[in-house]
Amino acid sequence: MQIAIVGLGKMGGNMVKRLLGGKHDVVAYDRDPAVVASLVKEGATGASSLADLVSKLSGPRAVWVMVPAGDPTEATIKELSTLLSADDIVIDGGNSNFHDSVRRAASLAEKKIRFLDAGTSGGVWGLEVGYCLMVGGDKSAYEHVLPALTTLAPKDGLGYFGKAGAGHFCKMVHNGVEYAMMQSYAEGFELLKASEFGYDLRAVTSVWNHGSVIRSWLLELAERAFNKDPELKELKAWVNDSGEGRWTVNEAVAHAVPAPTIAAALFARFTSRQDNSFAMRVLAALRNEFGGHAVKKA
Amino acid sequence: MQIAIVGLGKMGGNMVKRLLGGKHDVVAYDRDPAVVASLVKEGATGASSLADLVSKLSGPRAVWVMVPAGDPTEATIKELSTLLSADDIVIDGGNSNFHDSVRRAASLAEKKIRFLDAGTSGGVWGLEVGYCLMVGGDKSAYEHVLPALTTLAPKDGLGYFGKAGAGHFCKMVHNGVEYAMMQSYAEGFELLKASEFGYDLRAVTSVWNHGSVIRSWLLELAERAFNKDPELKELKAWVNDSGEGRWTVNEAVAHAVPAPTIAAALFARFTSRQDNSFAMRVLAALRNEFGGHAVKKA
Repeated sequence: MQIAIVGLGKMGGNMVKRLLGGKHDVVAYDRDPAVVASLVKEGATGASSLADLVSKLSGPRAVWVMVPAGDPTEATIKELSTLLSADDIVIDGGNSNFHDSVRRAASLAEKKIRFLDAGTSGGVWGLEVGYCLMVGGDKSAYEHVLPALTTLAPKDGLGYFGKAGAGHFCKMVHNGVEYAMMQSYAEGFELLKASEFGYDLRAVTSVWNHGSVIRSWLLELAERAFNKDPELKELKAWVNDSGEGRWTVNEAVAHAVPAPTIAAALFARFTSRQDNSFAMRVLAALRNEFGGHAVKKA
Repeated sequence: MQIAIVGLGKMGGNMVKRLLGGKHDVVAYDRDPAVVASLVKEGATGASSLADLVSKLSGPRAVWVMVPAGDPTEATIKELSTLLSADDIVIDGGNSNFHDSVRRAASLAEKKIRFLDAGTSGGVWGLEVGYCLMVGGDKSAYEHVLPALTTLAPKDGLGYFGKAGAGHFCKMVHNGVEYAMMQSYAEGFELLKASEFGYDLRAVTSVWNHGSVIRSWLLELAERAFNKDPELKELKAWVNDSGEGRWTVNEAVAHAVPAPTIAAALFARFTSRQDNSFAMRVLAALRNEFGGHAVKKA
């Protein structure tokens, strides 16, 4: 089928390649013309602007937006809403907050433009393995773009979960679970390293990945990382977060759902980015005040 | 090779079957003669007591102890230490605390009996998939029983990690990580269920298991469980713990390793077993005292 992809970064660029591999007719646009040119060489039709991209599609047009969540997605979808017509389809494949997806679906619906929120998991491995797709929004739009979704996803890695927002909410929870799973492994590896047994974590992860209860794809990635750098000496113990973990905790609070491990995993990342934290200075000050306990001077 | 298995429960019984499938000569003993008889039918040599079992082995004898951790393992290994001879081998495949394994190795070494602690993961699936084995203890003993270990484990699911205790410590951490991973998924599913989107968790777990970042064997088991009982209506929200999670938290404390998700997962299980908890009554009382906030009467 014909489909357009807007945003040709790590995710969008590989998705164009996977769609081309599935013999789809792909119109590709990115702010960087060099990136567009490289995908034209692989068989995509290049576009020089959103207007140019829309002009190269026949109706009902399907435009997959794969730009960073937040302002870039907002601006792209706003501009598309002025260029597209009734029955056309906007798919947001980014990590948008589901509240934004609910709002955008309603706003686009005023112009009878159909909307899908497609939570997309798979990272840089998606080109090879396929992208796990969690989709919400207009059911007729889902059915229209199903041939492209089927190419993008691995077998059985594609689901339609209901009204707009259902896709991005599901992806948000997926990422929240991911935070806590990663933190679980991280704590386990630190404890193994702290022990008297001098474990080779390459061997431990390899053994755990074969028949243990905690085998997983993330554990396979841990094994890869330890094989490259057994002590992770090349990394600083600083971990960013991209929003989905915060939203998961926000939603847990909104629904009064206890989420202690997801919250702890999120807060562990915040702690990793602190230098000489104020809270720990407060603790040191109080221990000194009540008990004269030794402190370290700045 | 010839090997004895003591304790023919869910784990031990299936291990006998897997060893027989690997053409090993297995001497089997359990307190329950009926269980022994059923495995004799499958090709094992039955024993009526530990003494009988030892008499049926030729040296160096290898005895795999697969009885519950704690007193049963202690009593079994103590009795074996009076029956075995120098160079014989005791393998503890149960979920023993690694401190006990260090002590037992030293105690057996006084009689020149060799000891291996073999952390064993795989549960009821081990018969089919193989048992992931994390082994510590006497290296020469490991090499002696390697043919049996290789049959028990899946390909690459077997590792020797060093001196006595290294196997059970590694298995302890494995289980601690398992607690927090399971809790991560559990929190995610509860949040999905609390949302406005009415997710079918059978569909979500199926999609997540195909190409998502959080795909894992535990998530495949979640999919199985939801397929059997989508709302888990047949279960009570009561979760036991068998010790390894507590030990992991104890060791994290001993080594001053932050383990917030593992500790939270353990405490969530304790909470699940409380009925009308005292701590929550304390909170209700305090809110009432300072603010006159409404309480529920017992």
